[in-house]
Amino acid sequence: MPEERALQGLRRGHDFVAQKGHQAAQTWVAPRIAGKNANTNPRPTPRPTMATHPARTVCLYKCYSSRMVRINEHYLKLKTNYLFSEIARRLKVFEAEHRGAGLIRLGIGDVTLPLQPSVIGALNDAVQEMAYAKTFRGYGPEQGYDFLRNAIVEHDYGSHGVELAVDEIFISDGGKQDSGNIQEIFAGNAVVALMDPVYPVYVLSNVMAGRSGEADIAGRYAGFVYLPCTAENGFRPTLPDRHVDLIYLCYPNNPTGSVLTRNELTKWVEYAHREEAVILYDAAYESYIRQADIPHSIYEIPGAKACAIEFRSYSKTAGFTGTRCAFTVVPNELRGHTANGDAVGLNALWFQRQSTKYNATPYIVQRAAAALYTPEGRRQTKGLIDFYLENARIIREGLQAIGLTVYGGTNSPYLWIKTSGGLSSWEFFDKLLHEAHVVSTPGAGFGPAGEGYLRLTGFGTRENTEEAVERIRTKLTF
Amino acid sequence: MPEERALQGLRRGHDFVAQKGHQAAQTWVAPRIAGKNANTNPRPTPRPTMATHPARTVCLYKCYSSRMVRINEHYLKLKTNYLFSEIARRLKVFEAEHRGAGLIRLGIGDVTLPLQPSVIGALNDAVQEMAYAKTFRGYGPEQGYDFLRNAIVEHDYGSHGVELAVDEIFISDGGKQDSGNIQEIFAGNAVVALMDPVYPVYVLSNVMAGRSGEADIAGRYAGFVYLPCTAENGFRPTLPDRHVDLIYLCYPNNPTGSVLTRNELTKWVEYAHREEAVILYDAAYESYIRQADIPHSIYEIPGAKACAIEFRSYSKTAGFTGTRCAFTVVPNELRGHTANGDAVGLNALWFQRQSTKYNATPYIVQRAAAALYTPEGRRQTKGLIDFYLENARIIREGLQAIGLTVYGGTNSPYLWIKTSGGLSSWEFFDKLLHEAHVVSTPGAGFGPAGEGYLRLTGFGTRENTEEAVERIRTKLTF
Repeated sequence: MPEERALQGLRRGHDFVAQKGHQAAQTWVAPRIAGKNANTNPRPTPRPTMATHPARTVCLYKCYSSRMVRINEHYLKLKTNYLFSEIARRLKVFEAEHRGAGLIRLGIGDVTLPLQPSVIGALNDAVQEMAYAKTFRGYGPEQGYDFLRNAIVEHDYGSHGVELAVDEIFISDGGKQDSGNIQEIFAGNAVVALMDPVYPVYVLSNVMAGRSGEADIAGRYAGFVYLPCTAENGFRPTLPDRHVDLIYLCYPNNPTGSVLTRNELTKWVEYAHREEAVILYDAAYESYIRQADIPHSIYEIPGAKACAIEFRSYSKTAGFTGTRCAFTVVPNELRGHTANGDAVGLNALWFQRQSTKYNATPYIVQRAAAALYTPEGRRQTKGLIDFYLENARIIREGLQAIGLTVYGGTNSPYLWIKTSGGLSSWEFFDKLLHEAHVVSTPGAGFGPAGEGYLRLTGFGTRENTEEAVERIRTKLTF
Repeated sequence: MPEERALQGLRRGHDFVAQKGHQAAQTWVAPRIAGKNANTNPRPTPRPTMATHPARTVCLYKCYSSRMVRINEHYLKLKTNYLFSEIARRLKVFEAEHRGAGLIRLGIGDVTLPLQPSVIGALNDAVQEMAYAKTFRGYGPEQGYDFLRNAIVEHDYGSHGVELAVDEIFISDGGKQDSGNIQEIFAGNAVVALMDPVYPVYVLSNVMAGRSGEADIAGRYAGFVYLPCTAENGFRPTLPDRHVDLIYLCYPNNPTGSVLTRNELTKWVEYAHREEAVILYDAAYESYIRQADIPHSIYEIPGAKACAIEFRSYSKTAGFTGTRCAFTVVPNELRGHTANGDAVGLNALWFQRQSTKYNATPYIVQRAAAALYTPEGRRQTKGLIDFYLENARIIREGLQAIGLTVYGGTNSPYLWIKTSGGLSSWEFFDKLLHEAHVVSTPGAGFGPAGEGYLRLTGFGTRENTEEAVERIRTKLTF
């Protein structure tokens, strides 16, 4: 659901665009402009005061003053994306017409299993600590507590043969935040490469920072380098045919469920070295990897520490979507440059960014995350992920059995379904909704290359997952 | 401690500047430049590969390639501020020379009282909800849960005669984050006014965004409009003598402990209307106000909803420094403008910013904050604040009794102490440390106008507060 969240902004964003059009209609000519035009009042006319320009309507008119506070106009480039509001609208209409239809939502990105017992135990203990002055915790270390960062270094990386220093780990309250904020430490004119379809936060955060031009009718922003992920390339884009500075990669991939092997990821690391680019590697779903030749971390690739930042999250690993904990790795050897060629450590820049504009993750939440690295925590987490992977298998095999083409769903909670009979994303969405009462996510909502696909997820309950597949199997007409 | 946090970044920031100098020394002339200069090798020389340009040293040399990833160079303008690292250094030296001296830290900005019973109860209940699928909460509403926002609208504003809509309230995980991030929605060339001394986050976030030039030797950045807060003006700056777009005001003030009356704040609202500026009003310490003519919210001033954004925090109100919850108010009627004069709602822009780059505050933490609005929660919170105000009174009266000039400490947890005998901030810091073994914060660390002052806080334990005052009273020589 992080992508739903990001796009919801665009819905309301549409409001300000609409409003803008509205105001353009009721043009207000400022007195001093009027005076000047009429040439009857050469002395400066006073600005509107609180009395003449009342609070309720101040600036509701088109003004020509150069003194009014200016907004960040890059926000206005954001192309209104109706994906999730349009889903909501169609569901509302459908439900009004089919009361008690028993919709099953398989498009959702939110989890359904509760926090595991080891996490609950750690939260209870941490809350008790907060109740007494002797054990109370106020401001914590800016990059996170060592008890959590040490566990990450040992279990998430050491066990995969990757050696990291504790000061390369930054604890945060979300991978969405980190992958949205990371662009701040790079130059405003950095050339950005994005997969298509794509997790919208990478796109929107760079548009808001001014690294793009306007969007075209398909929703592609001028200035970005798009990397189409199609069935033909196995949803593993080819290397850019030009120089780029920043490359957002997400593997296991949201939304297509595709993965990269060690050899394939090595090509990206080599490209980054060759072009002196930085890879922003979103590994939020790495815990779903079950196959040995798929790297869990980009740092398993030699040389990656000099060209990659990695994002991890506990959201889908341990059901932390409403509890909020994640981390980002910025290796000490990773460098960016000034215009005159001086090298600057990106770890120091990210530390500056986080220590200025972030203030550490709640102590109790960091304790909850640390519990995931205990033997019980690891066993329970594995059980939780096995459960969602089994859901994904049920969907994949069930849909394949009726002749649908299904990608992903192994080593990933996401399934990427080719629409049947050449239907568009939205047509197939409607077909599933009306014939099987199953809610999906149209692939076109993740980018133009997502057209002709639907996304389903393994995050539902077992009962709903099985029932949805049974309905699709028995009720869908071809 | 948020300001310590922000400044710690600068410490590490110093590393990258030092490193930069270091690299400039070991200049590496790229092969193709060398070839061109020597005019012996007209064909393009290959870029360094992973083999010739190994990961460990990649970009450790001065390079002239235009292809290397560029950093946000505004970060390099950040003036290294040694305040807190210098405090740490002096303490280390002192402690090595005076083992068992029993230092008392009265400069700290962190709280010492634990979470109150109503909060602990709410946390325990919420953690239990997270343990079961039926009551588990995943992704929450992007602006925060209604149970908390409704309580804020009713208790924080309704009870002071301010009417706000729920969608004007944005729950977050910290006032530091919000006051640091808010500048993103404004134009890159907005003119920023800042109090001096000042909470560093306002300054640093705008430097990082490129709204300033370089800093001078005193630490003032070119392009910012500074508003000196001195004993002469009662630490209530006079209105800017020129146009500004954004005005950061913090009342009750950190670090000076000063407050604004309703009449004084009205002048700022009038200025903002006259100049069509936006006031960014940090009311993080409003719960310390005990006097009737001091507004708790800027929205108590007529017209403020059309010109002000307000920041609130539970950190000092309820001991949430390590639990993390805050909120920001962006009124629906507040407008910014495009270059061509179209009005754009700032609420919609902030919603877009937050829904793209933030992902809601933990459910359990929002439940904890909501408990503060219950009758028990309100009683306990008042008790907690009374406790810190009593500490402040003890310090204020104790120091005044020995002839020191003390500002603040009523309606505020902060005390602003004039150094004696014309000593500098650092000289008086050393005097307190060596003669009374009391740690303070030199005022100069908050800005040039803070020179000649120390900041103390009421956040200590009662025992330490009383002991510190007793030591200062009996051991300080004049």
